[in-house]
Amino acid sequence: MKIETGTRKFTKPLYLESGRILEPYEIAYTTYGKLNSDKSNVIVVTHALTGSHEPVKSENSRFFNSGWWDALIGDGKAIDTEKYFVIVTNVLGSIFGSTSPISPITRGSSTLYRYKFPVITVRDIVRAQHIFFQTFGIRRVKAIVGGSMGGMQGLQFGIDFPNFAEKIIAISATGATQPWTIAFNKVTAEAIKRDPDFKNGNYDIEEIKKSGLNGLAIGRMAGHISYLSHSSMQKKFGRDYLRGDGKFDINGRYQVESYLQYNGDKFSKNFDPLSYLYLSKAVNMFNLSSGYDSMEEAYSRLKSELLLLSFSGDMMFQSKESEIVAENFRKVRKGELVKHIEIDSDYGHDAFLVEFDKFEHYIKNEL
Amino acid sequence: MKIETGTRKFTKPLYLESGRILEPYEIAYTTYGKLNSDKSNVIVVTHALTGSHEPVKSENSRFFNSGWWDALIGDGKAIDTEKYFVIVTNVLGSIFGSTSPISPITRGSSTLYRYKFPVITVRDIVRAQHIFFQTFGIRRVKAIVGGSMGGMQGLQFGIDFPNFAEKIIAISATGATQPWTIAFNKVTAEAIKRDPDFKNGNYDIEEIKKSGLNGLAIGRMAGHISYLSHSSMQKKFGRDYLRGDGKFDINGRYQVESYLQYNGDKFSKNFDPLSYLYLSKAVNMFNLSSGYDSMEEAYSRLKSELLLLSFSGDMMFQSKESEIVAENFRKVRKGELVKHIEIDSDYGHDAFLVEFDKFEHYIKNEL
Repeated sequence: MKIETGTRKFTKPLYLESGRILEPYEIAYTTYGKLNSDKSNVIVVTHALTGSHEPVKSENSRFFNSGWWDALIGDGKAIDTEKYFVIVTNVLGSIFGSTSPISPITRGSSTLYRYKFPVITVRDIVRAQHIFFQTFGIRRVKAIVGGSMGGMQGLQFGIDFPNFAEKIIAISATGATQPWTIAFNKVTAEAIKRDPDFKNGNYDIEEIKKSGLNGLAIGRMAGHISYLSHSSMQKKFGRDYLRGDGKFDINGRYQVESYLQYNGDKFSKNFDPLSYLYLSKAVNMFNLSSGYDSMEEAYSRLKSELLLLSFSGDMMFQSKESEIVAENFRKVRKGELVKHIEIDSDYGHDAFLVEFDKFEHYIKNEL
Repeated sequence: MKIETGTRKFTKPLYLESGRILEPYEIAYTTYGKLNSDKSNVIVVTHALTGSHEPVKSENSRFFNSGWWDALIGDGKAIDTEKYFVIVTNVLGSIFGSTSPISPITRGSSTLYRYKFPVITVRDIVRAQHIFFQTFGIRRVKAIVGGSMGGMQGLQFGIDFPNFAEKIIAISATGATQPWTIAFNKVTAEAIKRDPDFKNGNYDIEEIKKSGLNGLAIGRMAGHISYLSHSSMQKKFGRDYLRGDGKFDINGRYQVESYLQYNGDKFSKNFDPLSYLYLSKAVNMFNLSSGYDSMEEAYSRLKSELLLLSFSGDMMFQSKESEIVAENFRKVRKGELVKHIEIDSDYGHDAFLVEFDKFEHYIKNEL
């Protein structure tokens, strides 16, 4: 499988939903497979909040989270790189190569955006990608496939650029983020902002890469709760206590505590607190209808075939939220384009990154 | 309704489950109603982790959380103070008058326990109460009623002191704390311990009463998620945005964010971080079987009638956990003593502090 990676620079202004302008900006990307001559074999894969444009691990992988969809993308896999040219971009606001809050305000400057970075929305993320694909001469793709915030991007493409994708597969997504998820993001946001080392956004970036930021680690621990479920935690950890920790030591730990602590700390050294604030704000603000006069106006724009996959035990974006998306499309007589499949799973939100055997065939069948 | 409040001091050592000794110690309490001459009309009400021994609000109420069961306790109410003498103690480790991590190590000393406080368990909390009741000459009570950690205390009384209570009503409880709850407590514990103002337990107590501790506030925000549910949050807050906050302001807030922030900050000025660490450790360690050779040995000790009430939407101590408690009692042929009623509710764990009309009649019927 041929893998290429790069960054494209854009000097034309990007007009954001907020009314602000981002200019210049960059989009980092990876491609897998070969683009055919008439450019008709493109699949766009979109990543989740803390994902990257390296869903497949290779010898040149650079990120802590590279390989998040190894199971799905490759020669002969559900997203078959023998047939398709797969493009994944790093979303605007994320730190793996695209323009983010820790990018220089003007090229070559040592002044970083930090809190001067504009609030961006999923619509902005999608608009930037759409412009990016045009530079490849790609005006229509076979499919867009993504989970969580990746699924939101697929849905937003379907509404904002109805002629862009033949098919959209939106996994573990929602049509509008609900307060349960906003609440988890709030815990992380407050943990970040109240950490003295965050210094109101003026933190020492190199220092944080080395030692992590406690606020981000704490927030990620809360995040992990929202990615799992009561029952998957029970299966994974039970009431097991950490070997070596004293039973009656106030700081002694259960296995689940050790898991949260390890992953929280690891994450906080590999992600960025401002980027987290901006991307979780984008998730909070996500509402497919927003910017249109009504739900009807927004949802009736769809022209792509849409497959919604959801997991019954997802606490973050509940399965019924996908059903509501499907219902809304039915209300505006787009029902024949839309299928929703609920997959039985008690794993929780992270099922789309874990339980591949439960859903890869649905993707394979579509492509 | 007659209300009395006081503190009893104990100089005999309390032998803790850890093997350590607490000596001396104090238990603060409130009583409602009148003790009859043969002391046969006593009902013990037990409080939850951040509760107090003031379930009824009065002109002399002292605590931010006073009045948490106003709806249930009083003349003519489900727990009828015209008939019963109701006693509520402040649990060991809590800061409302009983001995806690911020009590002096020896009476009159200015040195506080802080991290020198021993780890205590629900069993220890119950043992201290049992001794306390003896000083009143009370060796048997009509009933023990409590929710969450209060329900755990009822269950523990039933196993450790089988002759003490005629009836036990344990609401929104569990037989053994599951990792989902331990995980939420972990977020709070890490937020507290990583807060520089916590100073490894040597924080300035007066300063924290005034300004709160960020770590405790952040932890409480996470806690509030576990007390509610996806659906109650949706009903309470929807996607409403805070009037006055800018839509495209990175720090602009949804209503649910404002709710969490307000309650987190309020709580952090009214509770104590070390006490929270110790009491949540007691919750984490709770397992009715522990200290006995087997589940069978523990559960077969029950002699009281037991009513388990649970709420279908409780995410913290799920309804099925109460059913497992009931099943365990059935396995050891105690089934005829035990009833479990699941109450239909999508409110979440806090239902036992909110949805009184859904369960007060069950309590009234028992008493």
